[in-house]
Amino acid sequence: MSNEQVISEVVRSVLAENGLGRAAGSGLTYCTSNITLESAELLMKKVEAKAKDMGMKVVTAVADAHGNPVAVRCMDGAFMGSYDVALNKTYTAIAFQMSTEALGKLSQPGQPLYGIQYTNGGKIVIFGGGVPLKVQDAIIGAFGVSGGTAEQDTYLAHYAEEVFAQMALEN
Amino acid sequence: MSNEQVISEVVRSVLAENGLGRAAGSGLTYCTSNITLESAELLMKKVEAKAKDMGMKVVTAVADAHGNPVAVRCMDGAFMGSYDVALNKTYTAIAFQMSTEALGKLSQPGQPLYGIQYTNGGKIVIFGGGVPLKVQDAIIGAFGVSGGTAEQDTYLAHYAEEVFAQMALEN
Amino acid sequence: MSNEQVISEVVRSVLAENGLGRAAGSGLTYCTSNITLESAELLMKKVEAKAKDMGMKVVTAVADAHGNPVAVRCMDGAFMGSYDVALNKTYTAIAFQMSTEALGKLSQPGQPLYGIQYTNGGKIVIFGGGVPLKVQDAIIGAFGVSGGTAEQDTYLAHYAEEVFAQMALEN
Amino acid sequence: MSNEQVISEVVRSVLAENGLGRAAGSGLTYCTSNITLESAELLMKKVEAKAKDMGMKVVTAVADAHGNPVAVRCMDGAFMGSYDVALNKTYTAIAFQMSTEALGKLSQPGQPLYGIQYTNGGKIVIFGGGVPLKVQDAIIGAFGVSGGTAEQDTYLAHYAEEVFAQMALEN
Repeated sequence: MSNEQVISEVVRSVLAENGLGRAAGSGLTYCTSNITLESAELLMKKVEAKAKDMGMKVVTAVADAHGNPVAVRCMDGAFMGSYDVALNKTYTAIAFQMSTEALGKLSQPGQPLYGIQYTNGGKIVIFGGGVPLKVQDAIIGAFGVSGGTAEQDTYLAHYAEEVFAQMALEN
Repeated sequence: MSNEQVISEVVRSVLAENGLGRAAGSGLTYCTSNITLESAELLMKKVEAKAKDMGMKVVTAVADAHGNPVAVRCMDGAFMGSYDVALNKTYTAIAFQMSTEALGKLSQPGQPLYGIQYTNGGKIVIFGGGVPLKVQDAIIGAFGVSGGTAEQDTYLAHYAEEVFAQMALEN
Repeated sequence: MSNEQVISEVVRSVLAENGLGRAAGSGLTYCTSNITLESAELLMKKVEAKAKDMGMKVVTAVADAHGNPVAVRCMDGAFMGSYDVALNKTYTAIAFQMSTEALGKLSQPGQPLYGIQYTNGGKIVIFGGGVPLKVQDAIIGAFGVSGGTAEQDTYLAHYAEEVFAQMALEN
Repeated sequence: MSNEQVISEVVRSVLAENGLGRAAGSGLTYCTSNITLESAELLMKKVEAKAKDMGMKVVTAVADAHGNPVAVRCMDGAFMGSYDVALNKTYTAIAFQMSTEALGKLSQPGQPLYGIQYTNGGKIVIFGGGVPLKVQDAIIGAFGVSGGTAEQDTYLAHYAEEVFAQMALEN
């Protein structure tokens, strides 16, 4: 084998180790990165600690890059209704690749996306608390929190973004 | 038979060959023209090419004259949430025989159709990106696109209308 | 470091630059491969050609590795109801990583998974016509077809598996 | 106060500290004990470890005594469809205060509860993997697991029961 062939084989094997890899010379597949359960748990616990400091009991949720749930955690005594809200915030942040807060501004009466809150099977949330999670500009999941006022949820979601950015740096 | 009767019969038979027209001499049935899968695909690909030029990744959808889907295509990496939105834009454009942009103006708070966004099972979209497709004033289907800002989606839907008008002329 | 180790490190760093791969020493993300729109279209057209040979009009659907739709195509005159069935077959094949035919056997009265057809929001299909699509044992999407008898749909789904295996080999 | 009254008060106060018991002297309220998020997490992780030993990737869920979710965890690479199934198993185990395995026997065609799988909004699961969690005969929550065969899920649910009984003893 030529040097190039050797390198190619090593590359394919590293890709395979990572569950990646476009079949050689092919447009057959493309790859997406997804947050692990381990990272999701770490992130959720850091937000829970902050919520506790603020005297809140929240539900936190994390979805993967495709909007499917990775984990949901309900602090003891959190609102029952927060489960759907937190989870749907992760769906929304993935569905349109922006925070629920940003979508909320675009979907007020008279604004360009007014009405989007009625599509997608009742899963769109248009107030703060849901954010995409990024590693080097790639969206690898989303975080959602519910349990406080819209301001508090929005604050905690931004806190989650910061915590996650720090986690990404450290890894 | 008179000349007129002869001509009428010929016209009806040509229409019937093309799956068009009311069956001769009958009040029992009537015909509707529907866009074919082949034309739908051609139209969707032309819009995808334009979207790509604009740096966008969109979902396109085409429905028939009855609001049922003909085809949906999601460009690699398009927003997950755009699937429902693009498809529902075709439903809306057929449901009320107007663009989603036009319906959007009528359904703002205070406007005559305010509230229509809450009916029809969450399938009404009230911002741009959905248009009826016409052949000689007959609506034969609808096109929907989602993936950009409301302006971008609206632009692409009008582009689809133009492309389709050209396709109709050439046939 | 051996040559192989050097190459491995370079590969991982190139992956990281592209937002891919597991960051070195990190459990932060993992990667999944997904079928492209281009491959989906090619596969669907081959199945349509076979369906046409059999005198059938079918709806075909392809989902990505996470169960989200990639494309749906309805042959002219296909059953309206086949749209949901074909799409839900792709959901089912991803949801439980087996063909709808295999799940169908497990979910008959008295069988181990009897009852699974009532969960998951009415999206589980338990007769043939839905199959996972694999590249080197990794599920990268799913194919669903509806429009004929259960036997015909099952036949076409297996045909799709074969066609896709061939596509994967050629790439 | 008599000795009896003193003892009663002390017992009530200890119960109250533990979130248990009927408020003293009142018919106005009664208390239910619910599993904490902390215990739920501990239980789920022990089942995940066992699942990993068995070569499985599962979704685990815990609900409180009222059938509302406490936490859901999806191991990396678990079936997408297992989320709904695991969560619905907890709902079912609380809804009828028995394991999903036991309900499964009663709800086969010809059996006394046949048909219960069609009620309750598609949330009833009738194969193994869901169990009530008890402390001294009081149901304080439910555990659900999905990801393997019905036998494997049933095995893991019984394992969870044992683990939880042990956790209850140690506290």
